[in-house]
Amino acid sequence: MFGTRERFAVVLAAVATLALGDPPRAAETPGANGRPRARDLGVPFEGTPGPLNAITDVAGVEVGHTTIIRGHGKRVPGRGPVRTGVTAIFPRGKESSDYVFAGWFPLNGNGELTGTAWLEESGFLEGPVLLTNTHSVGVVRDAVIAWRVRHGGVDASGYYWSLPVVGETWDGELNDINGFHVRPEHVFRAIEGARSGPVPEGSVGGGTGMICFEFKGGIGTASRRLPAEAGGHTVGVLVQCNCGLRRQLRIAGAPVGLELPKDEPKQSESGSILIVVATDAPLLPHQLERLARRASLGLARLGSVSGNGSGDLFLAFSTANPGASSVSGADGLRMLANERMNPLFEAVVQATEEAIANAMVAADTMTGADGRTVPGLPHEALRGVLRKYGRLDGERR
Amino acid sequence: MFGTRERFAVVLAAVATLALGDPPRAAETPGANGRPRARDLGVPFEGTPGPLNAITDVAGVEVGHTTIIRGHGKRVPGRGPVRTGVTAIFPRGKESSDYVFAGWFPLNGNGELTGTAWLEESGFLEGPVLLTNTHSVGVVRDAVIAWRVRHGGVDASGYYWSLPVVGETWDGELNDINGFHVRPEHVFRAIEGARSGPVPEGSVGGGTGMICFEFKGGIGTASRRLPAEAGGHTVGVLVQCNCGLRRQLRIAGAPVGLELPKDEPKQSESGSILIVVATDAPLLPHQLERLARRASLGLARLGSVSGNGSGDLFLAFSTANPGASSVSGADGLRMLANERMNPLFEAVVQATEEAIANAMVAADTMTGADGRTVPGLPHEALRGVLRKYGRLDGERR
Amino acid sequence: MFGTRERFAVVLAAVATLALGDPPRAAETPGANGRPRARDLGVPFEGTPGPLNAITDVAGVEVGHTTIIRGHGKRVPGRGPVRTGVTAIFPRGKESSDYVFAGWFPLNGNGELTGTAWLEESGFLEGPVLLTNTHSVGVVRDAVIAWRVRHGGVDASGYYWSLPVVGETWDGELNDINGFHVRPEHVFRAIEGARSGPVPEGSVGGGTGMICFEFKGGIGTASRRLPAEAGGHTVGVLVQCNCGLRRQLRIAGAPVGLELPKDEPKQSESGSILIVVATDAPLLPHQLERLARRASLGLARLGSVSGNGSGDLFLAFSTANPGASSVSGADGLRMLANERMNPLFEAVVQATEEAIANAMVAADTMTGADGRTVPGLPHEALRGVLRKYGRLDGERR
Amino acid sequence: MFGTRERFAVVLAAVATLALGDPPRAAETPGANGRPRARDLGVPFEGTPGPLNAITDVAGVEVGHTTIIRGHGKRVPGRGPVRTGVTAIFPRGKESSDYVFAGWFPLNGNGELTGTAWLEESGFLEGPVLLTNTHSVGVVRDAVIAWRVRHGGVDASGYYWSLPVVGETWDGELNDINGFHVRPEHVFRAIEGARSGPVPEGSVGGGTGMICFEFKGGIGTASRRLPAEAGGHTVGVLVQCNCGLRRQLRIAGAPVGLELPKDEPKQSESGSILIVVATDAPLLPHQLERLARRASLGLARLGSVSGNGSGDLFLAFSTANPGASSVSGADGLRMLANERMNPLFEAVVQATEEAIANAMVAADTMTGADGRTVPGLPHEALRGVLRKYGRLDGERR
Repeated sequence: MFGTRERFAVVLAAVATLALGDPPRAAETPGANGRPRARDLGVPFEGTPGPLNAITDVAGVEVGHTTIIRGHGKRVPGRGPVRTGVTAIFPRGKESSDYVFAGWFPLNGNGELTGTAWLEESGFLEGPVLLTNTHSVGVVRDAVIAWRVRHGGVDASGYYWSLPVVGETWDGELNDINGFHVRPEHVFRAIEGARSGPVPEGSVGGGTGMICFEFKGGIGTASRRLPAEAGGHTVGVLVQCNCGLRRQLRIAGAPVGLELPKDEPKQSESGSILIVVATDAPLLPHQLERLARRASLGLARLGSVSGNGSGDLFLAFSTANPGASSVSGADGLRMLANERMNPLFEAVVQATEEAIANAMVAADTMTGADGRTVPGLPHEALRGVLRKYGRLDGERR
Repeated sequence: MFGTRERFAVVLAAVATLALGDPPRAAETPGANGRPRARDLGVPFEGTPGPLNAITDVAGVEVGHTTIIRGHGKRVPGRGPVRTGVTAIFPRGKESSDYVFAGWFPLNGNGELTGTAWLEESGFLEGPVLLTNTHSVGVVRDAVIAWRVRHGGVDASGYYWSLPVVGETWDGELNDINGFHVRPEHVFRAIEGARSGPVPEGSVGGGTGMICFEFKGGIGTASRRLPAEAGGHTVGVLVQCNCGLRRQLRIAGAPVGLELPKDEPKQSESGSILIVVATDAPLLPHQLERLARRASLGLARLGSVSGNGSGDLFLAFSTANPGASSVSGADGLRMLANERMNPLFEAVVQATEEAIANAMVAADTMTGADGRTVPGLPHEALRGVLRKYGRLDGERR
Repeated sequence: MFGTRERFAVVLAAVATLALGDPPRAAETPGANGRPRARDLGVPFEGTPGPLNAITDVAGVEVGHTTIIRGHGKRVPGRGPVRTGVTAIFPRGKESSDYVFAGWFPLNGNGELTGTAWLEESGFLEGPVLLTNTHSVGVVRDAVIAWRVRHGGVDASGYYWSLPVVGETWDGELNDINGFHVRPEHVFRAIEGARSGPVPEGSVGGGTGMICFEFKGGIGTASRRLPAEAGGHTVGVLVQCNCGLRRQLRIAGAPVGLELPKDEPKQSESGSILIVVATDAPLLPHQLERLARRASLGLARLGSVSGNGSGDLFLAFSTANPGASSVSGADGLRMLANERMNPLFEAVVQATEEAIANAMVAADTMTGADGRTVPGLPHEALRGVLRKYGRLDGERR
Repeated sequence: MFGTRERFAVVLAAVATLALGDPPRAAETPGANGRPRARDLGVPFEGTPGPLNAITDVAGVEVGHTTIIRGHGKRVPGRGPVRTGVTAIFPRGKESSDYVFAGWFPLNGNGELTGTAWLEESGFLEGPVLLTNTHSVGVVRDAVIAWRVRHGGVDASGYYWSLPVVGETWDGELNDINGFHVRPEHVFRAIEGARSGPVPEGSVGGGTGMICFEFKGGIGTASRRLPAEAGGHTVGVLVQCNCGLRRQLRIAGAPVGLELPKDEPKQSESGSILIVVATDAPLLPHQLERLARRASLGLARLGSVSGNGSGDLFLAFSTANPGASSVSGADGLRMLANERMNPLFEAVVQATEEAIANAMVAADTMTGADGRTVPGLPHEALRGVLRKYGRLDGERR
């Protein structure tokens, strides 16, 4: 299976950032891959986003996607159709070997996020976070090690070990997941393609084949920038969204799922959501775990009850305190007072809510294995529901 | 301090259940203490409540309140004014010494819930759950032991120990909390007064002096009954609600807090919420912890971000599997399949959402220490906001 | 019950430190209350203790005991006999209001340690740690709040809450535990009597009525000082030891329990052990939780399997990083590299092992309720066993 | 790298159980691969082992090893030398698709154990536990999925996902770990070779290249059978031991490491230990986590302090309660009373202690990458030390 050779087309979705002067206002800009974003449609959100309204508003964060789409028609295990990919997130850019403080929280553990035992024990995220499909976590994990070894440094010594952080959601409805189509090359490409700037959303990278509230889902991102008097920190969120039942979906408080019902609704949730929270606020590991926990509350605003089949695993890191992982110990660490964390909590809840909405707004209808089609969230219909409930931005009563 | 004698008036709020034929439909019935409930006002909720729409819909559960209100005007520590109390919840009624399986979850740990180390280790809740104010947890805890010793059984032997479960939220704005006005007698009365039937809500028991989203808060309850095909189980929730900022408040998705702003809003959240979840579904301890975690998602629907100052501690127990704690071990235990838990998760989220709304709707304006007044949630204004956002039940578009 | 008045004799055990020039070598010094210590008897231990071989070797740490012993003969609940007390441990001395970073670990949760939800959430221990008997946790907890309020500062404002940390083990075999003999005054005295210097051991303070491996137990302490090249840090441990079966007891690897059997051994363990670890090493909260976990491994060296009835709850704090809890946040925090923690781990294991041995060596035979007598560990017999197994210090082969 | 083809020699170590009448007494039998065992040498242990003194004494448990040894001399990444492998443990045999209740505990999280998020959430171990080297966790994980898919059943449907449980320790001193020499075929062979009966120990399977207290380590196993009055249950333990410093090593309480010092001792621990506990006692998931935690106390008896670099991850499962994972829920579950768990706790501690000793006694001197040689624990020298400290079985004073 691993030895099978096939032709395949890799769509490298980590597009280059266009050379821009000042970053445009997020609300006026389509996403990095030309897809609209939720606030473009008039979905109202609280709080103030950063310039890109993306996790990359946190300085240093780089994101790369490898999107793998090939084949159509009947599922033939090992042959396709393939609708999957890999997303890589680097806290300090892929050239840095400096760790970041981190914490994590499992809201519902029907999923995999490797590397968490050491993340929790050490307080550090030592490298990138990779996102992919459920049955490709292993190949991605080992490929991260291979990439580190190739990259030189301590890893190449042979006397150093890595415990990579790789998460997943299940894309088996649209993707031939048991064909194990993700290969080390795809991982290397997502890593090498990681960059700052706008982040492609929707059916890209690890989110390629994902389904969210029975609409097409995938990758979404958003950010919040706190006012100076609240510290001026930035919080960025990136989700790989694959969870929820249609009837549960609420957007901006409006019962969107009930208003846009499905003919044959799913009886039980089987999806998952990965949420990665980045910040430049100087938080210690136990404080970052607190941040990760708040992603739950953002998810809840969409109507999720975090079903039994859902791997709802959340990770938060801080790019502050460079050098904290020096083996000679650290001096001069900064720590935000617990008493000043509330604005960050709000920012996480708000940015999570918006990132999920962005994933759904950006993801277009997709047809995958066995001709199964998952509709994109219809933009005009969404606007109609928001209007009905007095929640359409610019048209509120 | 403990020896000071004063006259005081104890309001025993554990009112007797009126002899009723069939229980009336919850939506038509004011609460047990004559206060209206959220759905009476047209607040729309999902799911189907039990006959009482209260935690006592779970057979066996008994609730008792001791409400302590006395004095007015300037705060004189040790003298009052007093606005506090004690609430007791018995899973199988106060006469039973049979334990229940239980689990707990701290969403934000700025609070106390004694007895959790053993609850988590053993999987059992061994007695009642008591709720009171932050600075009276100790006296309540020891009084529970004293009550058990008096009550006879193994406790009276002298060779048995108890680790009571007592939680708290902080009522120091309205109550002379440093006067330590809760006494063992108040605990005994809440225990002795515990009963099945309708549950008084609002400014009663442990909730007497509490504040919720900058409106008067306190005790609230609600329940859900699953359809037979989903198992027919009942989920009941009781909250002692003391959390949230006005501007965050959402009810039924409508931005109630923004529409009903406060002149001098609080800058930072300092409250807490205790949530107790009861069910008759046969869940094991690790499954009950999953249930407790879902209370977070219900709380989130009200707009909470679980602030740093909040002790958001949630406990869930199951009245199924009597005899599970037999020292000779248990045979014949039942366990709901994980795959069938989703309806319970939804029920917890829905009942938590409604219980908080009920606490706020039931609690009337209160004036306490130093003449400080906290307004009750204005019912007509609430209806107005819901109407504006198309969310008033019976008037939806 | 709380109102009953009786005469009682409080033995204030927090003896003053004798004025000494250089601190004497620990191995040559009887304990603070004149009791011998384990290494005085030739028990071999690894590592190098601090000058006092006590938790107070960590600068700033103060310990106070209130020992309550009165009455003899038949147990009459509420009257005695009384064999109990209170121990107070202040990380930075009782005059400081500066918090310390802290973490905790429950090896077996059949016990109470209040305040842990907030300790874990915030990363801070905000005040003293109090140790007492199981049924007096409540009165001690509320008394700590009362003391703080009396003490002035923010607590006296009425707009501040405390979540005190109080632990317990069960002394009901020797003590009329259901008589609730600990009163607020005892707590105040333990607090006021807290000081640096040698720490009384054995049947004192919270340890007064405790039993350890079926010998008399109680309070014990020890410390380790790391060599300069390992950082020069100090680790201090204090235990309230009430756990274990005779046959399990190993000291310095020798099967002491099997060699000194009991006529009617207990069939099942019902005790507990509290372990408090102090250090001046600059550790963050998640690192302190790692330290607390290592206390398990020290306990294991004595032969414990941490029985079902045992409340084995461990807490670690660091006196480094003063000012870390400033509400304006902290700059200049120091953090020991994870890679340099191994010497601290060893120090915790070693000091825990010795502190337990010290508790047993210091505690003399005691007769309590119903005339029940618990023997002290016989010193010469212990030496005999160690000699037999080639483990007597100074006499090793 | 994954595509490189090389000749290699796989040593399939899962030897067939010899046809035996009554199982011989463990103490008289060399291990399954002809290596002696610790009690053969006179190491004294507490408790009574099962017939095989192995994890396979728990009915249903099957173990298979693939041992990969090839090449000598200088390390050429990708070429070798190779000293590694894979071990597979099936709770109910490889033909069963019935889950087992399970729990886990990370004593020190510098390691990987995939699948724990779901194990902890669901309470079930859904398939085998695989052990390998740190940098091959990924390939082993995905290969388990591939094996399940090949195997048919729900996995082959394409609408089912797996979250395999794979653990690791680091063999990079002896093994070309960055050559990624473990391949799916090795995993399939370990799985297919899994069987009941004696278990090969020492340098086999996942333990092939491991080092323990600076002696050669690897796989070890042991068991305990409780007396009928304590329930008659069996506890089996299997370790993959790669941890510890020489000077720390204690066996049966004797300071073996100090008596058998190394010329150039390591300065800091960098190893790990995986411990798998099996039992037929009817324990629920939260009780199994309690069992897993006790493995810590067995490890401590060897002198370990669980160093920073150690991935000390422990998993426990129960083969009782077949059918508990039925999607229609379970009736008739049995649960051992918490009050009756102490004998199991002792059994885990004792069997863990012996399994580690067995791993060391069975593992012979090995030369690996760059000609580095790790000595086996010298049997006669060990006996000499035990004799010196009065701990040699049959020769005790």
